[in-house]
Amino acid sequence: MSGQTLEVFEAIAGGVATASGFQSCGVSAGIKARAGALDLALVVSDRPATAAAVFTTNRAQAAPVSVSRGALAASGGIARAIVVNSGCANACTGEDGVDVARATTREVARLVGCPVDQVLVASTGVIGVALDLEKISRALPAAMSALSAGSASQAAQAIMTTDPFPKEAAVRVTLGGRDVVIGGMAKGSGMIEPNMATMLGFVTTDAAVPKALLDRALREAVNDTFNAITVDGECSTNDCVMMLANGASGAAVTEANYEPFVYGLRAVCLKLALGIVRGGEGATKLVTVNVTSAATAAEARRAAKAIANSPLVKTAIHGGDPNWGRLIAVAGRAGVEFELSRAAVTLGTIVLFKDGRPHDEAASAAAEYLKSDEILVSVDLGAGSASSTVWTCDLSAEYVRINAEYRT
Amino acid sequence: MSGQTLEVFEAIAGGVATASGFQSCGVSAGIKARAGALDLALVVSDRPATAAAVFTTNRAQAAPVSVSRGALAASGGIARAIVVNSGCANACTGEDGVDVARATTREVARLVGCPVDQVLVASTGVIGVALDLEKISRALPAAMSALSAGSASQAAQAIMTTDPFPKEAAVRVTLGGRDVVIGGMAKGSGMIEPNMATMLGFVTTDAAVPKALLDRALREAVNDTFNAITVDGECSTNDCVMMLANGASGAAVTEANYEPFVYGLRAVCLKLALGIVRGGEGATKLVTVNVTSAATAAEARRAAKAIANSPLVKTAIHGGDPNWGRLIAVAGRAGVEFELSRAAVTLGTIVLFKDGRPHDEAASAAAEYLKSDEILVSVDLGAGSASSTVWTCDLSAEYVRINAEYRT
Repeated sequence: MSGQTLEVFEAIAGGVATASGFQSCGVSAGIKARAGALDLALVVSDRPATAAAVFTTNRAQAAPVSVSRGALAASGGIARAIVVNSGCANACTGEDGVDVARATTREVARLVGCPVDQVLVASTGVIGVALDLEKISRALPAAMSALSAGSASQAAQAIMTTDPFPKEAAVRVTLGGRDVVIGGMAKGSGMIEPNMATMLGFVTTDAAVPKALLDRALREAVNDTFNAITVDGECSTNDCVMMLANGASGAAVTEANYEPFVYGLRAVCLKLALGIVRGGEGATKLVTVNVTSAATAAEARRAAKAIANSPLVKTAIHGGDPNWGRLIAVAGRAGVEFELSRAAVTLGTIVLFKDGRPHDEAASAAAEYLKSDEILVSVDLGAGSASSTVWTCDLSAEYVRINAEYRT
Repeated sequence: MSGQTLEVFEAIAGGVATASGFQSCGVSAGIKARAGALDLALVVSDRPATAAAVFTTNRAQAAPVSVSRGALAASGGIARAIVVNSGCANACTGEDGVDVARATTREVARLVGCPVDQVLVASTGVIGVALDLEKISRALPAAMSALSAGSASQAAQAIMTTDPFPKEAAVRVTLGGRDVVIGGMAKGSGMIEPNMATMLGFVTTDAAVPKALLDRALREAVNDTFNAITVDGECSTNDCVMMLANGASGAAVTEANYEPFVYGLRAVCLKLALGIVRGGEGATKLVTVNVTSAATAAEARRAAKAIANSPLVKTAIHGGDPNWGRLIAVAGRAGVEFELSRAAVTLGTIVLFKDGRPHDEAASAAAEYLKSDEILVSVDLGAGSASSTVWTCDLSAEYVRINAEYRT
């Protein structure tokens, strides 16, 4: 992402503890079945940080989601620490589950030395199984001792469930002559084991960001990145993206330098989000779906999501079939303005359909293009001037096999 | 469907030419590649019939859809014949495609001896390929000679693309002491070859039905049947259901006997629609999704469709996994009122989740139940008193393999 002249940030190596004043760790609490598997992560700021979060819209919200939501409201958007476990989602666990999530934040608050409402909590793993508080309590002191700045690779591993690889990203942005760092980690919805569809993202920065600007920046960045990816259209009970801004760099984000900050934040979120897609269940290709000439931005997004979630489109791309008819048919059924006589379908730069007419002479070139690992699908709706980009992966028989063969 | 005491119709053997005054045929016009394959069907009424149709909502409408729509408007809802070809959808074929569809109806009108706007036309097959008018014109005289009353199995075969079996249904209803017959045929969205996702249905009756009542009856019946099934959430450029009522039985449908007529019509449509689901690509199970306690009927349908189209739910059922967590998660993300603490998930009669709590002790009985060919999934949203039923099939690796391995 670096090296482009218009971008005002520089991609750097790093993750959730690269920004000044943050530490992280990943330890084994024995929640995952495999002995020694990392399953508990902590992110701690050395001072109170402004905090923002975006939570799942799923109505079946897991206990940690409601506890973190409550903490953010109670603290007025200030946090010192985030505690995350994998191996158990603590979802559909009733009031007991809420008690466990609350007790976890109390324990972290005691160890960190902060008010309980300055601790956020997230969980990912199997739904409907009780989270063992004792295991977490036993592991937390060791986690505190393991905290360190810099590399957060242990933390990035401890939040994984079925992800094939950890996902970290960081950028440096210059604000008013001072460098600030934005870094983060994420886990995706691998779904190799079911009920583990959770998407979690954690971002930190050493910029000082007023609460309202942090909320706005996180929402904007998430909308174009985490909310613009789809593996299979599912949305979990535990999804969330949390962000802490601790001001340790001495630089502050204001309305004046908000844009470069958001560019950097978006770059971090995009790298994490694309990592989730690349690590999608059975995925062999990263597919960028670009919808143009839509009547409105909302319709552009809607059409792009419909295309990105279409099993017929995803199987065609998996099979390397330049099947523009499936793309036209999905655009037509997406419930958006669509004018066939002005519509176009392009794979990469190869035009397959334009102004109501097929260009099947380009089919063999398009089939060759579809052998790439990264595919650009462009659909022009012929209806207006809005556009939207969404990312997805192909749909393979492997996806079905893995999700069907698992037994709860 | 027969034998239930509350039902006022009797299922009988038959199809689209079982009602009095109708004839049908299926012939080979050479549109399909395989020599001698049936690919042209005609349905003719011996007198002008009241006609109604429900067309695809896809904005990329195929030429035959716009021509039939225009014919119905021009005739005021009267038709003598329906001509259907398979092997070519005549979709995305521009003005030339419209000319071919119009010329086809002109040719049929000449042979039948009726105004051109009393002929409806439908096509199914590959998108973006020109339909060869000459092949159709050459085959139509033979089709006229092949017309016969009674068995319509040739017609039902001639409209198939990748359907594994033909779909026919008929019922007898007694209206005011007179027997009337309602019969039909359909083809499904097999999608073994792509771009052939079209769902077509053709229904005839020898009842006399005023235009307004026929429109209402067809819409009601389609809403609960053809519109309540989903194989993969796709909706094609060519979908339509057409119905002719010619009055040859001497019995008339009025407001007074509308209900029994609609029951019979719904039964015909349901049998055809379930045939489409059973013949779904790679399908091994017929899945009935029953959503209850929704806030509104629209929300019940929306949740049921979300469940029926969820790849995670469909793969779990395919694999025989009683994974209630996936069902709760989909219900939660469906964008409908949903109250986890009052929600329930039941497979067959086996309760797996109720009042916010798992009943995992029932998991092995539920896994045994999932070995059946027909599965009932019930999800109680805990939000109100509306309900909806939707039918789908499981998602197998075979679906992906077939749709990915095809080359356009």
